[in-house]
Amino acid sequence: MIAPELNVSQWFNTDEDITLAGLRGKVVVIEAFQMLCPGCVAHGLPLAQKVQRAFPKEAVVVLGLHTVFEHHEAMKPVSLAAFLHEYRITFPVGVDAVGAGAIPKTMESYQLRGTPSLLLIDKAGVLRANHFGDVSELRLGAEIATLLSEVWDDRETPDVSPVTVCTPDGCG
Amino acid sequence: MIAPELNVSQWFNTDEDITLAGLRGKVVVIEAFQMLCPGCVAHGLPLAQKVQRAFPKEAVVVLGLHTVFEHHEAMKPVSLAAFLHEYRITFPVGVDAVGAGAIPKTMESYQLRGTPSLLLIDKAGVLRANHFGDVSELRLGAEIATLLSEVWDDRETPDVSPVTVCTPDGCG
Amino acid sequence: MIAPELNVSQWFNTDEDITLAGLRGKVVVIEAFQMLCPGCVAHGLPLAQKVQRAFPKEAVVVLGLHTVFEHHEAMKPVSLAAFLHEYRITFPVGVDAVGAGAIPKTMESYQLRGTPSLLLIDKAGVLRANHFGDVSELRLGAEIATLLSEVWDDRETPDVSPVTVCTPDGCG
Amino acid sequence: MIAPELNVSQWFNTDEDITLAGLRGKVVVIEAFQMLCPGCVAHGLPLAQKVQRAFPKEAVVVLGLHTVFEHHEAMKPVSLAAFLHEYRITFPVGVDAVGAGAIPKTMESYQLRGTPSLLLIDKAGVLRANHFGDVSELRLGAEIATLLSEVWDDRETPDVSPVTVCTPDGCG
Repeated sequence: MIAPELNVSQWFNTDEDITLAGLRGKVVVIEAFQMLCPGCVAHGLPLAQKVQRAFPKEAVVVLGLHTVFEHHEAMKPVSLAAFLHEYRITFPVGVDAVGAGAIPKTMESYQLRGTPSLLLIDKAGVLRANHFGDVSELRLGAEIATLLSEVWDDRETPDVSPVTVCTPDGCG
Repeated sequence: MIAPELNVSQWFNTDEDITLAGLRGKVVVIEAFQMLCPGCVAHGLPLAQKVQRAFPKEAVVVLGLHTVFEHHEAMKPVSLAAFLHEYRITFPVGVDAVGAGAIPKTMESYQLRGTPSLLLIDKAGVLRANHFGDVSELRLGAEIATLLSEVWDDRETPDVSPVTVCTPDGCG
Repeated sequence: MIAPELNVSQWFNTDEDITLAGLRGKVVVIEAFQMLCPGCVAHGLPLAQKVQRAFPKEAVVVLGLHTVFEHHEAMKPVSLAAFLHEYRITFPVGVDAVGAGAIPKTMESYQLRGTPSLLLIDKAGVLRANHFGDVSELRLGAEIATLLSEVWDDRETPDVSPVTVCTPDGCG
Repeated sequence: MIAPELNVSQWFNTDEDITLAGLRGKVVVIEAFQMLCPGCVAHGLPLAQKVQRAFPKEAVVVLGLHTVFEHHEAMKPVSLAAFLHEYRITFPVGVDAVGAGAIPKTMESYQLRGTPSLLLIDKAGVLRANHFGDVSELRLGAEIATLLSEVWDDRETPDVSPVTVCTPDGCG
């Protein structure tokens, strides 16, 4: 499926609003996190920062998405701003828009299981991976490179299968 | 260049001798190490073990190469055998053949700078990367996947450029 | 010097207010932190949790002190409460009272250099160590045990020298 | 009990033979290891090196003991010498003397359960702790400091209880 558009109420670390539609032709890595989630701080966000450093930004765009689904009063944008400053997070981070219940809107549309979640979107805008929890760096590097190696032609029907790291001859 | 053939005096963890010529069509990852090299034990060999687990063995072959260039009396095959057992290394490991001087023969032919070194060989048998020291897992995963995505046709002239993880549209 | 009394506006993880005066006869370890300080989250607070587990609570009391001196709006008590819950911090934590300027009152009276800071107070209530930044676990364990080995007699003049881990015969 | 004397066939990193009897008045930390034991390389030996750095050598003596009980051919002194050089181990290391069976003599007399084992001997020469496997740095620091705080008088009956890190008022 085409990855649902982001529904963001406020952006940090960018002067202009970002849409997935505006990123066609690039591989997009979205780190969905909460600033008070220990696994996000220890693993998820450092991994996103490594992706930001490892790949050329013309090819791979890293975004953060602050998907607060608990302790809403504790993680308001004023706190997030200080958090991003202290942890030196420099990629754009969007605040997921408040939803009808506790779950924010983008988190709902992607059916995320919790935080951290890492989403991979290909050049055609198709959601190709949705990882919850720990992610192997080797596998993630391979998945990103696999998406980079795909030729993008916006007239084609996009590939809708999950990304796999394999040979043309078969794989696992 | 076509990766020089391995010059191995003894193999562990395999019943038959292994040649690079026999691995055409697969991506080959070679971890060159010494059993008493702290960086090999702490980083190089664990990384090779992660590669072994992360990719299907039909597509990616992991080999160890014991390139002893110092303390030769300390790292004889009887010691290597115990080391491989204790560290639970299960991929095939070849003992690099003794050379004219301190440097063993395969290490010499690849002009390795030391240990650990990680070599990447593509499906056509071309040496595409030669990393000395620490290697980023994300980058290595991307490099392996890039080699996996290449179509191998043994009649073609092989690609002789270093592996890069990029888009068809440009990269860094 | 006798360690200055804590000036705390609100306590978490305890039903009653805590005073240093009430802890005479015990060794007290105070972890001064800010919830959005990366070094506190990665090192300072985990170390305090290890102290809590390693020593009998009848002998060693671990306290947290939330000494906010920047980003005050970002680290209000409602955010701290969620932080303590998510990071499973179960020792008592006091919110350092707002001071005349950015520096809170207890932080000012101890002349702390920043966060994380770890304070060691002996059985007689004397401040015996004030560590800023990373602390060696071995040294800290030794310092705590040295304070534990001191005989406390509330009529005596307390020892006012910094804690040292040494022999009666001399040390370094 | 008075710690059994070391039975060592060869010493490294010292010009003269070392005996426990010659170390009365000092706290002695013995790291029993095998050079091909992964837990020794990853945890035991680095911890012994930290002890060496954390305490004054006049007060705390760190020794290594190479207790080979398996793969004897793989870990002969020529291999150990290269290992100590590569891992930059500078404290004295003794080779435990070959016993009647696979277990070397000192290992037998201390009834060690395996490697790594860490032995603590007090100023009077009494064995006060025998830790197998992982050791908490905080606890070890505390144990060493507790032994350091004991007054040694060679006429007294030595304390034969295990070292505990506690108050005179009670502990756990």
